[in-house]
Amino acid sequence: MSKNMIIGQSGGPTAVINASLAGAIECAFALDEIGTVYGMVNGIQGLLDDNVIDLNERFENNLSRLNRLSMTPAMYLGSCRYKLSDDDSEYEKIIEALKKYDIGYFFYIGGNDSMDTVDKLSRYAVKNNIDIKIVGIPKTIDNDLMGIDHSPGFGSAAKYIALAVRNVAYDTSIYSIKSVHIIEAMGRNAGWLAASSVLARDSKNVAPHLIYLPEIPFSAQRFVNDVKEKLSEYNSVIVVASEGLKDENGEYISAKNNVDKFGHVMLSGTGNYLKSLVEEHIGCKVRALEPSILQRSAGHTASLTDMTEAQNLGAVAVRAAVRGETGVFSTLHRTSDNPYSIKYSTEKVSVIANAEKTVPLEWITESKNDVTQEMVDYLKPLVRGMPQVPYRDGLPDYVGIAYLDMKKQKYKD
Amino acid sequence: MSKNMIIGQSGGPTAVINASLAGAIECAFALDEIGTVYGMVNGIQGLLDDNVIDLNERFENNLSRLNRLSMTPAMYLGSCRYKLSDDDSEYEKIIEALKKYDIGYFFYIGGNDSMDTVDKLSRYAVKNNIDIKIVGIPKTIDNDLMGIDHSPGFGSAAKYIALAVRNVAYDTSIYSIKSVHIIEAMGRNAGWLAASSVLARDSKNVAPHLIYLPEIPFSAQRFVNDVKEKLSEYNSVIVVASEGLKDENGEYISAKNNVDKFGHVMLSGTGNYLKSLVEEHIGCKVRALEPSILQRSAGHTASLTDMTEAQNLGAVAVRAAVRGETGVFSTLHRTSDNPYSIKYSTEKVSVIANAEKTVPLEWITESKNDVTQEMVDYLKPLVRGMPQVPYRDGLPDYVGIAYLDMKKQKYKD
Repeated sequence: MSKNMIIGQSGGPTAVINASLAGAIECAFALDEIGTVYGMVNGIQGLLDDNVIDLNERFENNLSRLNRLSMTPAMYLGSCRYKLSDDDSEYEKIIEALKKYDIGYFFYIGGNDSMDTVDKLSRYAVKNNIDIKIVGIPKTIDNDLMGIDHSPGFGSAAKYIALAVRNVAYDTSIYSIKSVHIIEAMGRNAGWLAASSVLARDSKNVAPHLIYLPEIPFSAQRFVNDVKEKLSEYNSVIVVASEGLKDENGEYISAKNNVDKFGHVMLSGTGNYLKSLVEEHIGCKVRALEPSILQRSAGHTASLTDMTEAQNLGAVAVRAAVRGETGVFSTLHRTSDNPYSIKYSTEKVSVIANAEKTVPLEWITESKNDVTQEMVDYLKPLVRGMPQVPYRDGLPDYVGIAYLDMKKQKYKD
Repeated sequence: MSKNMIIGQSGGPTAVINASLAGAIECAFALDEIGTVYGMVNGIQGLLDDNVIDLNERFENNLSRLNRLSMTPAMYLGSCRYKLSDDDSEYEKIIEALKKYDIGYFFYIGGNDSMDTVDKLSRYAVKNNIDIKIVGIPKTIDNDLMGIDHSPGFGSAAKYIALAVRNVAYDTSIYSIKSVHIIEAMGRNAGWLAASSVLARDSKNVAPHLIYLPEIPFSAQRFVNDVKEKLSEYNSVIVVASEGLKDENGEYISAKNNVDKFGHVMLSGTGNYLKSLVEEHIGCKVRALEPSILQRSAGHTASLTDMTEAQNLGAVAVRAAVRGETGVFSTLHRTSDNPYSIKYSTEKVSVIANAEKTVPLEWITESKNDVTQEMVDYLKPLVRGMPQVPYRDGLPDYVGIAYLDMKKQKYKD
């Protein structure tokens, strides 16, 4: 006897969250155990508001549209940042909503916070003998999830950063005057994205010249000395800095310290602070670049490796739920760097929830301003391949957004 | 009897200046009238410093490398911002340097200022009966050159802006809270690049919701009202603003007003000023994004139309010089929007030098916050097509930079 499934997306966007959605949908369509595939619009919040849509209507018998969905950045179903309370009545409401749609399988694509939701909800269901399998599908550009070799979304953002740094290196190399360009990468307290700028280097380009990760306490004095030393060798010096750099006292060097409701500190201004150090202590031409959200939503330059893995992790989660697993997330482990090889499996979601995986200190050079070959070997396979994004009039022909679909009452775009 | 040619690049970078260089080189290799092809490293400055390299050594018998050069952003030969004085002794030095290399053909790829150099130098040569043909090849991302339908480099930057706005539209659509994102486009006093964000719209995406060009005096009051009105209809409002916006008194709304040595005002901060208006008068979530130099150096997402035209304009210039033309630049005129069709020719460089082509006021809507269908028809063909950029390890495999070539004494990369 088949049961229906429901899927939602949560947290911040990446270039390939919709690939996980498409992978889960495609897998579900092929399984007899699953009836209708529903989507929560704006995550758990949408479920509570009965903002639920039928994904069979939108994608069954239209696999080419499902393929385009994989290549559409951000979240087709919309997001939310909804933190489950510990109040039983909230869980009861969720279970009630799920029963209304005869849901046997619940999937949530997201990061640490979303996995916390999966963890709590699955424990509640088990404790109360409710037969709904609850499974997480991981994502985050920050690559700070535990229990997985690297998180889907990271490879595409890493590729964006490496592309940007390589292009900026060419752009800034053309003048014979001294200049410093500082590129601020996202990543909160983990330096993975800043580190991935190392991939911009090849036999023709040595930039970035300096890379600063939040795993190492930041010293303004050391930074100024580093930049001066590089300027003595190169006209154009490119610095990549992680948004989450902290000084020796553990204070963010960024001016603004706003805290969101999960207790995450929201940062901005790290690049601008470093720029002011160069202005004050060196005095050459200096620019701070902040790709900001452009680095997480660049569907047109996603990594094919990342996109394929995101799709597969969607399918792995669906098969695990149908096999009877709950309170787990789909994951991947690396078996070899070269040739690159991974194995998919599932793991208890408790290992991922509310924890952060930072860069191992031994992957940072002794000079504290660069990364080691181990880091390069780790990163290199993750950015490979370009998806064949369909273009129309010179721009990517993405699938629309679910809530706009609803407004317009048209599902085929 | 053949004569040698020399070519240089000047001004700011674009994604396709090297395509013009490659087009000129390839054409020269095929012409009996031209002997050796030399390159000035860092433009006129390099010629005066005898920083001249042999391009036959680097590219003859290696047409695949020449093809990769077309797809390499910025300037293989490096740039300069050298303004010719009116002192005859300076011209004499230049002519002397050219005679040393037996130059009969001189090409300069650049914008308004570079065309000023071509103009002055060609007049000096004619006046003094010096048989060196001096021809310009146009470029600028700003699209503000006179005498040409659109300038090479613009189409690729326009595509970058349209891609960025479309991706940001997806990224910011996922939350159900109200937000405003402001994207600042380059373009100095011409609104072409900001206008090109209109191409981000399609049947699934209405962003950008508001577009502000410097051709219309900026009113803070009108801006705040516009944003409020859009916020009443949409959760996520995307605004594109040109860096060169001026208020009703003709003052740049950007805080910083530095002037470079050509008298151009260098801008930054327009987006941040608009952000502060939203913070002060509306109070919802707001972010300012400044793609900055990323928009001019994105070789991996160049427009194939732009790249092909840039190549052709290089070749058209070389053939014109060999035919005996001097003091001209290669240009293109549009004969039809749909199907898109252009004709190449040459024109007196005096029409381009030190003049600016701004957006026609009739291509801006009466609401002063959007562009008309005429603008869309004009822009649409310019961003079409993706060059088949060769990738290695997930990143574009560009040709190196000439001065690095020299350092390493290796030409094959």
